[in-house]
Formats: sequence, structure tokens, C-alpha cells
Amino acid sequence: MSKNLTSRAEDYSKWYNELVVKADMAENSAVRGCMVIKPYGYAIWEKMQAELDRMFKETGHQNAYFPLFVPKSLFEAEEKNAEGFAKECAVVTHYRLQNDPDNEGKLRVDPEARLEEELVVRPTSEAIIWNTYKGWIQSYRDLPILINQWANVVRWEMRTRLFLRTAEFLWQEGHTAHATEAEALAEAEQMNNVYAEFAENFMAIPVIKGLKTESERFAGAVETYCIEALMQDGKALQAGTSHFLGQNFAKAFDVKFTNNEGKLDYVWATSWGVSTRLMGALIMTHSDDKGLVLPPNLAPTQVVIVPIYKNDEQLKQISDLANTIKNDLKALGVSCKFDGRETHRPGAKFAQHELQGVPLRIAIGPKDLENGTVELARRDTLTKEIVNLDGLPTLISKLLVTIQEELFNKALNFRNNHITKVETFDEFKDVLENKTGFISAHWDGTPETEQKIKELTKATIRCIPQDGEEEAGVCVFTGNPSKRRVLFAKAY
Amino acid sequence: MSKNLTSRAEDYSKWYNELVVKADMAENSAVRGCMVIKPYGYAIWEKMQAELDRMFKETGHQNAYFPLFVPKSLFEAEEKNAEGFAKECAVVTHYRLQNDPDNEGKLRVDPEARLEEELVVRPTSEAIIWNTYKGWIQSYRDLPILINQWANVVRWEMRTRLFLRTAEFLWQEGHTAHATEAEALAEAEQMNNVYAEFAENFMAIPVIKGLKTESERFAGAVETYCIEALMQDGKALQAGTSHFLGQNFAKAFDVKFTNNEGKLDYVWATSWGVSTRLMGALIMTHSDDKGLVLPPNLAPTQVVIVPIYKNDEQLKQISDLANTIKNDLKALGVSCKFDGRETHRPGAKFAQHELQGVPLRIAIGPKDLENGTVELARRDTLTKEIVNLDGLPTLISKLLVTIQEELFNKALNFRNNHITKVETFDEFKDVLENKTGFISAHWDGTPETEQKIKELTKATIRCIPQDGEEEAGVCVFTGNPSKRRVLFAKAY
Repeated sequence: MSKNLTSRAEDYSKWYNELVVKADMAENSAVRGCMVIKPYGYAIWEKMQAELDRMFKETGHQNAYFPLFVPKSLFEAEEKNAEGFAKECAVVTHYRLQNDPDNEGKLRVDPEARLEEELVVRPTSEAIIWNTYKGWIQSYRDLPILINQWANVVRWEMRTRLFLRTAEFLWQEGHTAHATEAEALAEAEQMNNVYAEFAENFMAIPVIKGLKTESERFAGAVETYCIEALMQDGKALQAGTSHFLGQNFAKAFDVKFTNNEGKLDYVWATSWGVSTRLMGALIMTHSDDKGLVLPPNLAPTQVVIVPIYKNDEQLKQISDLANTIKNDLKALGVSCKFDGRETHRPGAKFAQHELQGVPLRIAIGPKDLENGTVELARRDTLTKEIVNLDGLPTLISKLLVTIQEELFNKALNFRNNHITKVETFDEFKDVLENKTGFISAHWDGTPETEQKIKELTKATIRCIPQDGEEEAGVCVFTGNPSKRRVLFAKAY
Repeated sequence: MSKNLTSRAEDYSKWYNELVVKADMAENSAVRGCMVIKPYGYAIWEKMQAELDRMFKETGHQNAYFPLFVPKSLFEAEEKNAEGFAKECAVVTHYRLQNDPDNEGKLRVDPEARLEEELVVRPTSEAIIWNTYKGWIQSYRDLPILINQWANVVRWEMRTRLFLRTAEFLWQEGHTAHATEAEALAEAEQMNNVYAEFAENFMAIPVIKGLKTESERFAGAVETYCIEALMQDGKALQAGTSHFLGQNFAKAFDVKFTNNEGKLDYVWATSWGVSTRLMGALIMTHSDDKGLVLPPNLAPTQVVIVPIYKNDEQLKQISDLANTIKNDLKALGVSCKFDGRETHRPGAKFAQHELQGVPLRIAIGPKDLENGTVELARRDTLTKEIVNLDGLPTLISKLLVTIQEELFNKALNFRNNHITKVETFDEFKDVLENKTGFISAHWDGTPETEQKIKELTKATIRCIPQDGEEEAGVCVFTGNPSKRRVLFAKAY
């Protein structure tokens, strides 16, 4: 199968689309723009969920669940938010189907069952949640509210791609309420840091933390923190965002509280989310022309054992040995699968596990049985060696940690080599054309300049990096003064 | 707070509604029939999810995710299924909102953005899933497919109640595909057994396993296995169902496979699900007039420690001791919370934890510090005693197991005392009127008789018990011959 995978050099976009499907992660469904996440892909998503959920709870958050539907009158209450999402809303207008009198055996919407008020399928849940919080908050004693929700959301995008941009996607959305501006700001920044830590330490994806410009902010936010990653084709990908919403939603939904001085004030808010889009980031950061490369933390199976045998007795002996290895690995917290399928030859199994990114492959043949060895192959480096059975589990356990680190470092080097400082617009265009990646440039701070650069080059300001220093300079486009560099890139 | 709870004797239905809200489990939302599951309720649901997910994986199932929407043409493909759900479908007809020219600041559906084909918000996913499976199955080698999905579904019910019947609810739905009828039947029965085991061993809810009659079957099923529980008001509650779907969906979606003899055949199917309805079953099985009673397995907090103090020094000493107890309990896998809130008096804390069903409460006061004791109170029996600190963690750990068992046994006794064999229709009506509970009666096997009994008494056949023996008799209503008893009851 892997032989059929288009190479990245040939057509990066095609490579991605093929890989997602061939590695059995997801596929398109009968519903325009909606995907089916297949078990192998979903198992990876579950690992992300478990780790994020742990991190959210560790920072004091609890899960809850709010309705899928947002009544139109609530949806439109926060004007900017409504404006930002109105163009891509799935809208429920009826609550019943009936037999179609003109078309035997078919159904149609029952015209009598029109809803009095249309329901928007949530594209994000600020509106329905803040309308709910109104009933929960009277005094500063009711604050903070620190809630997260795991849910599906729908944004009717016109151009969709598996994981990266789909009409329905899975995500988590945190929605918090605070008594003070400072506390809400700290929360928004904290959660962006949690995302950065998760991306780097768990997914081995280096990210740049920063703030969005006004025109790239979440609709309804006062400030949007983000983490930006760089894909192997030199395009950026927004991997997570955390919004300081100010009092915008509190004002839209009239959520006031009595503060500790006895005065009424509007509540301060944040919201933050990551989605199945991270699956796309994962694939495009680490994978190669042979298929998926998975950081061990995210691999549904970390080690696969493939038997190579000529007769049943050999198979029996290899199975027994494999079982011992499997149990030893389990005791060390390493997941291992024995691929004993008799319907497939070893070569086919090798190809499949390569395509699906299993970090380590053990092959055991008759000679290995004699010598007390196995063949151990690394997916990330595509290298293999004969190793002794003695100490194998410990070796593997350590090697998985090494692989995780090396994948991160490799991606980090690539990313760092693809941040280019430019001083002129010619240099700017040249980088976009030839080197790709992030462009660190001065910008005059106006949405107009940002918009013009976008129109001319398709590059957008990915973020104003948090760790960037003040540096006097002139805008790469207008020559007007600038106080700090921002990062531009073409982006997913 | 608990003082305000309506008693079960006074108004069982009101007691339930109040309890759900006052114990902070869920509340109604701005969307008709849709609930908000609050953090405390959701934490209980998460415990159910984790245990069920473990059981599904242990029986070889994997999770995946399928689209929220079902195109109308797929929805109507399996006729009986479509007929069963058409009357309660939320239907998406448009994909965009626009500014309303007649109503400044308001939005309306954009008439230009009408979908070519309406999308049904999934009430259940057989249609979209079997349309997907069609692409996955060619040969018997592709079978079985053993997939589960955790998802939200929508059924536009007219009369809704928190957890028990809501327009949107959370559930899991298993969808499996098999090469033979026998295998699919065995799967359907196996999953019903998993549900029974989960209900009894984890939720402490005794259930009766059985088969639904034709008129109570899932729309599109050949056979529906179910587990039926009995609530404290003598009404039955269907707690889970597992369907043998025969080849109905394979035929509707043309899903054929080459069997091991090289012949083409339609694939055999099952589907099975439990939902947030189980939260309702949990509440109505164990709780009392003081509030929620939670089996220790499901309690977000199993032990709460309340300090009773007059000065800061006492509080400090009690906190230190509480911390030691908490850590000792954690080491034994018991979750424990110290309620050190200075905004609430001990009495208010006691009432809240009682209302929220924390299984064990420890109170520590100055005398306890002197004597090396604590006051330990059981939520289920409302009893308390002074116990020594020595061996407290072990005592608690064992006591939690005891409570779990005793809750089950109590519910089991109640249930067993509420199964009444009747021979005549007068007796039948008398039990319904006075004793309530399950009625074990002979039935002539016809849907007509079933329907008439339902019209006259509101009682339905809950199931044909699996462990019921053949026993010749005559139908309680028509006097026609019957081979076995079935269980009738009024039901949620």
C-alpha cells in the first residue's frame, strides 16, 4: 500500500489526503464536508483527549455539557460573534418529517412542523453558555466558574479537508467566568500555555505562543492568544486559541455580579479550544513518504511484533516469546501488539505498520529464536538492528522516550530554520516563494497594511510572538515606524 | 436546602425534578427540551462512561466517530427505522444566516442558502453508519466490525424531563457487522449482558434481562434485548437495549460480502445503546427524601471531611489531620475532599453533601483531636458513629464496598417484592392500582391484546424475561393459551 502513496515533494496536498485515508484515520462521508473518524484515527484522538482532560482538571476545571442548539435570538445577542459565524451556520427549521404525498416511499419536512424560532447548530457555545451562566452568577462568591465541554460543533465551510477544515468537527471548549479583568486575562494566558505544553511535550509539535492581530481575533474576543505550528511544507497551522472575551458576553447576556465591595459589575470571560484539527497538525509535522510517523505518546500501539515462520512449530515458539515480551512491556506501561494474522505475509504487515506509524517494530524469525535476538526497527528513522532479548523491554521503554524527544527536536530544527527575518517587501516575497515558513518582519500595526499584504501574497500575520522583544524598525510594506516584529506566513 | 425538597410520598415526580436541580446535576436550558448537564451531574456521567468504555474495549470494540447529520435520502432508506423516527426529527434546511432587512440588528435564514437535500440531526446512527460500512466490507475477512460511538443524538420529544426524556441526549451507540446470523445474535445478547453487569455491579441497579415484544422493538430491529429496572414509585425504566438487526440495514444500504464459501450474502448487524437516561435511573433507584444517594462507584467524591472549629489554630490542626486522612485514602483509591470553605457553617455543609449524595462524611472537631477520633456518617443509612483514627482508611475502604453491596441488595429486595404473579385481569388492575411494580402474567402473544391492555391500563409489556421458564397458562386478558409469562408495568 505505501508504494502507492504520493510523495510530499510530488504533491504535498495529495500526499496528506492520501495518507489520512490509507492510514485508516478518517474518510469523507455522505454528508458534504463531514468526516468519519475511523477507529485508528479515533484512538489517537482519544489519547489527546485523555491528556488534555487531565491537564484541564489539574488546572481546576470541570467538565459539563450544554445544548447542541442555540436559539437564533441568543445567537445574535453578541453582535460580533454572530456576525463572525452567521455565514457558516447550519440551521434547524423543522422538527418532523412526513411521507411525501408527491413521492411515494419518500419523506419530506412537514410544513406544519416549522419551529417558532430557528435553532443554530452550535459553531461555538459562548451564546448558549453565557445565557446559562446568567442564572448561576449573582455574587463574587459564585466565581470563578471554570468549565470545559467536549463536544461536536458545526461550521458550514465551503472548502473542506479531512481534519484540517470540516463542516462538523470535534473539540473541547473551555468557558470561564471571573470577577476581575486580571484574573480572566491570566486564565486565557494560562490555557494557551497549557496548549503549548501539550503540543510540545505530548505531541512533539513545537509551537510559537503569541497574540492574534485584531483582524485575526476570534469574533467577540478582546484578545486572542494562540499557538502556531509550522508544517513540513512551510505553511503555518493555528493549533489552538485562547480568548480573553472581556465583558462582551456578560454585557450581551446581562450577566452581572455583586463584587466584594458590594457593587454590581459585569463578569469577565474567557474561552479556549483545540479540535480534531490537531490530528492534521500531527500528521503534517512528523509523517514522511512511507506514511504516518507517530510520537510514542500518541501511538495507539507503540510496539508491534511480527512473526516470521515457515511452520506451525516455529509460529508457536515465536508466539510464546512474543507473549513474554508483550507482558514485560505492559508492566513498563508500553503498549504492544502481536500481529499473528495468517492472512498476511510479513512484508505486507511491515508495510501496513509503517504506513500507520507504529513507532517500533519487532520481527522474530527462526534464527532469532536460536540466537536469543530480535530485529528491532524504528519507524521514525527507518533504521533497524539486531538486539539481544536480554534487557529488551527496558531498551524499548527508553527508546520510546528517545524517539519522542528526537521527533520534537527534528521538528524544532525545521521550524527554527524556517523563521526568516526580512527587512524589505522583496525579501518578504522571496521567502514566501522559495524558502517558505515564518517571516519575521516589522509591520505598522494597521489592519489596512495587513489586508494589503494578504491580498498581494496570501500571507497573514500568524501572531505577535509573546517572547518577541521590542525592536524599533520600519514596516516592511509601508515604511512606517514599528516597535516589534510579527510573524507572517501562509497558513492552513 | 434539603428541607425544601418535596418528599417522595407527597409527589414523586416533583421530588425527582427538584432533586435533579437542587443536587446541581442538570437544569433546563433555553432550548425547548434540551438540558444543561452541570459539572456535578457530568462527573457522574464521566464515571459511567469510563467504566462502560472499559467494558466495551475488553469485549473487543473500538471507538469511532460518524457525522451528526444524516442526509434525508439515507435516513429514509431503511423504511421501518425511518418511520419510527420521522415524527421527532430535527431537520437542517439552511446553511447560512443573514441580516434581516425587515428587522435591524436581527438575523434570519438566508433564503438563498437552502440545502439541496435536507439533513436530519441523527436520532440514532444506523443509516449513516451502514452507508459507511458499505465501503468497508467486501469479504468475510473484513468482518466482524465492532465499533462504538460516544455521541449526542436528538429526538424531538414533546414531553421532556431532565435525563429521562430530553430532546438532545448523550449516549453511546455500538454498531457491529457480522458474517453470520448466529454471531450477530450472540453479539446482541453479549452486549445486553454487559449492560446488565454494568447496571448491577457498577450502578447497584438490579435489572431484568429480556426481549421486547414486536410492538416495543427498536424501529428496524428483528429482536431487541433489553434490561429493565424498577424505580421506587413502582414504575419500570428501560435502562439499555441491544438490537439484533438481522440483514435489514445491509439490505437497505446494499452491504454484501463474499463469505468463506465464495458466495455473496448480506451482512448481519447489531446496534446497542445506553444514554444519560441512566442518570435518571440512578437517581430514582437509590435516592431518598434528603436528596441523592450515590453508590460509591459513581460518587465524584466518596468521602468528604468537614471541620468543626472555633479558632484558626483548631482549623489548622484539623486541616493537617484531614490532609493525612485524604492522602491515606488516595493511596487506597478512595476519593476524598476536605470542605474547608469559610463561607459556610458545618450544618450547611452537611446538608449540601447529604443532598448531593456523598457516601461518607467525616466530621472532625476539637474533641476528636483530643481523643484521636472522628465522626463517620453514612449517607445511605443516615447513621453515624464515633470511630478511632487508627485503621480509619481501611475501615472506610471496606465500608464503601459494603455500601455499594447494600444499596444493590436494598434495591433488589424492593424489586423482587414488586414482581407480582397474577392470573386474572382484575388482579392485574388491582396490582397496578395498589401495589405497583412488575406484573408477571400470561399473554396470548398478539399485538392486539398488548395494545388493548395498554389502552385500558397504561401498562406495557416491559419484556419477555430471558430466565423465564415455559409454563402453560391462559392470557390474563383474552383467556387464550399462553406458553410463558411476560412482565407488564407502567413505565418511564
